Amino acid sequence: MEHPPVLFQLFAVLLAAKLGDELFKRIGQPALVGEILGGVVVGPALLGWYELRPETELFAQIGAVLLLFEVGVHTRVGDIVRVGPTALLAAVFGVVIPFIGGLLLGGAFGLPTDGRLFLAASLTATSVAVSSSVLASLDALRSIAGRTILAAAVTDDVLGLLVVGVVAGLAAGEVDLQHIGLVLLLAVAFIVIVVVTGTGILRRQRSLLTVPRFAETPFLPGMIIMLGLAALAAQIGLAAIIGAFIAGTVVGESAEREALEVETAPVGAFFTPFFFGFIGAQVDPFAFASPTALLMVGSLLLVAVATKFAGVFLGALRGGWRRALVIGWGMVPRGEVEIVIAGLALAAGAFDHETYAVVVAMVVLTMLMAPPLLRPLVRWAESSSDL
Amino acid sequence: MEHPPVLFQLFAVLLAAKLGDELFKRIGQPALVGEILGGVVVGPALLGWYELRPETELFAQIGAVLLLFEVGVHTRVGDIVRVGPTALLAAVFGVVIPFIGGLLLGGAFGLPTDGRLFLAASLTATSVAVSSSVLASLDALRSIAGRTILAAAVTDDVLGLLVVGVVAGLAAGEVDLQHIGLVLLLAVAFIVIVVVTGTGILRRQRSLLTVPRFAETPFLPGMIIMLGLAALAAQIGLAAIIGAFIAGTVVGESAEREALEVETAPVGAFFTPFFFGFIGAQVDPFAFASPTALLMVGSLLLVAVATKFAGVFLGALRGGWRRALVIGWGMVPRGEVEIVIAGLALAAGAFDHETYAVVVAMVVLTMLMAPPLLRPLVRWAESSSDL
Repeated sequence: MEHPPVLFQLFAVLLAAKLGDELFKRIGQPALVGEILGGVVVGPALLGWYELRPETELFAQIGAVLLLFEVGVHTRVGDIVRVGPTALLAAVFGVVIPFIGGLLLGGAFGLPTDGRLFLAASLTATSVAVSSSVLASLDALRSIAGRTILAAAVTDDVLGLLVVGVVAGLAAGEVDLQHIGLVLLLAVAFIVIVVVTGTGILRRQRSLLTVPRFAETPFLPGMIIMLGLAALAAQIGLAAIIGAFIAGTVVGESAEREALEVETAPVGAFFTPFFFGFIGAQVDPFAFASPTALLMVGSLLLVAVATKFAGVFLGALRGGWRRALVIGWGMVPRGEVEIVIAGLALAAGAFDHETYAVVVAMVVLTMLMAPPLLRPLVRWAESSSDL
Repeated sequence: MEHPPVLFQLFAVLLAAKLGDELFKRIGQPALVGEILGGVVVGPALLGWYELRPETELFAQIGAVLLLFEVGVHTRVGDIVRVGPTALLAAVFGVVIPFIGGLLLGGAFGLPTDGRLFLAASLTATSVAVSSSVLASLDALRSIAGRTILAAAVTDDVLGLLVVGVVAGLAAGEVDLQHIGLVLLLAVAFIVIVVVTGTGILRRQRSLLTVPRFAETPFLPGMIIMLGLAALAAQIGLAAIIGAFIAGTVVGESAEREALEVETAPVGAFFTPFFFGFIGAQVDPFAFASPTALLMVGSLLLVAVATKFAGVFLGALRGGWRRALVIGWGMVPRGEVEIVIAGLALAAGAFDHETYAVVVAMVVLTMLMAPPLLRPLVRWAESSSDL
């Protein structure tokens, strides 16, 4: 079966992800890890029932977009602003220290300058999707630690995407600081303007979204706003999931929020397995049969985990060391932004295929290893009322 | 904007379809007609915000699949079997008479022999998706007329796909009657075996689908079964939507059917506008500026409507003439199968681009014109208790 039909591919990855979910629930481990491993099994490297192509990638992308939209609906802007200073510090330290670690490790790997820069960039951003999904499954999204992780992860996605801009410029031999400043300004302006005006309008007219006759609940208007802001965010150089998150925070101000949540949940449940399955399908377990490759993955994973954890822990210390431990560990999982960066580096010739595979493996391994330890950490911080 | 990003395209078509829905609800017309016209407006011919490409086509296909799955969930097999004889007659007459009409009209158009055969084939199948969507909006799905339309439409899809097999064989100069018999046998066997064993198993164990821990309701298992049977049906030469319909009838036997319906509804509401929007986006209003093209569309539309209506009416007469009027008119809308056939004919060189555009226009016009008249017909038959 060289090219399985797309409908069969969707069937295969949904089935595999839910079987992985089932298995991991039964052994008391996070479901999303099982979903990712299900994607590895049906992916190109093993069964070959699932391919990485534009259609399946779009399903994966909508999965991430819906995940962040749902997180946004559950998030109140005031809650985020209150943890703002800590989150900002955690995000900045959690980007700078991994970046330095990546530069040093790239030197040890013997990568050329542009390869080192891209490797460093590919350690920066935390996966908002994975972090928030784990926090939601632990019922910890609205704790101070949860909100800090969320805010810091959204912030470091913005920073990570800026870093990519700088790195790509450096690799091409031209860095336009004015342009980068403009992008940062645009990103911040986009987020602030949309959130402030959006929530402002909905707070005055809390049933605005159910005014149309096609809308008995804010669900369909919410989906339209979600797709629109996701597309707009991607257009101005932000990640689509950030636009979706913002859309969620705005639409979540509706008077009919409960109906919105009830209707969005099954759509999210349908799509998110495609996101985690797609991530898993990018992993080729056979690519790491050589000792060199294994050593590269091992050392990159070590640097990725240690620098992120240390950076965020330092940045978040002002809220107490117990909570800083939770926040630091909660930001270890990398995700979609890194895979995009690695793809850019591959396309620019800064990475060879081996380095690309190593970075993807690092990303997936951080996704797999962070959740199991986060659960006891959250419970322990909870028990000392320090979450 | 030569190639708008896919996320923006999804946003544009969802917004346009729901605005069309809104407008048509406000003027008291069927929402799906508004959704199709929304697709025309944002499609390649007018605004160009939406393109026909594999990703958007997959969203449209899943929209049709979900529509038929929901219809299946609402349909009990016994109800279909009871209207079986009438539905079978209506389907056969409703395929044969339009086919003959198409052959004659193709001659009048001066098409070559293979072109005539394909034109005739492209008049055969009723759109299950459109018919059932209109019936559902009129609350008439479970009436005798509604069930007959549904059963006959599923049957004529099967017949239509067989006709395509014959026609493609004839066009290639080789008809393998043994092969065609085998395909028919396989189609019937697939439907009967899946429905009988599937509903049999679920009737004995009515909570089977909520046994997995990942499944609090039959929703996610239902989605997996839906995608699997849709892929399998497409694989054996049936339409994917027929597999989805069967999956719905089977999964609908669950004890937790109500929860299933509640969770499937928003997923359907999210996807179906992409189906109707995609149909609309295939229409190029400017292609019919010439009198010849207008005349072709007009005469094809006339033949398509008259032959289908007459054939089905004759086939359904045994249930009374009032009901036969409703059934006949309810089967006028053509759909996805015809567009696929026209695409095959274009690829085989049997149609030129103009003939292709004419067939697509005929399909969309039958979709647009059937619903407004079906509503008063249904009300009138209802008032005389003859539905």
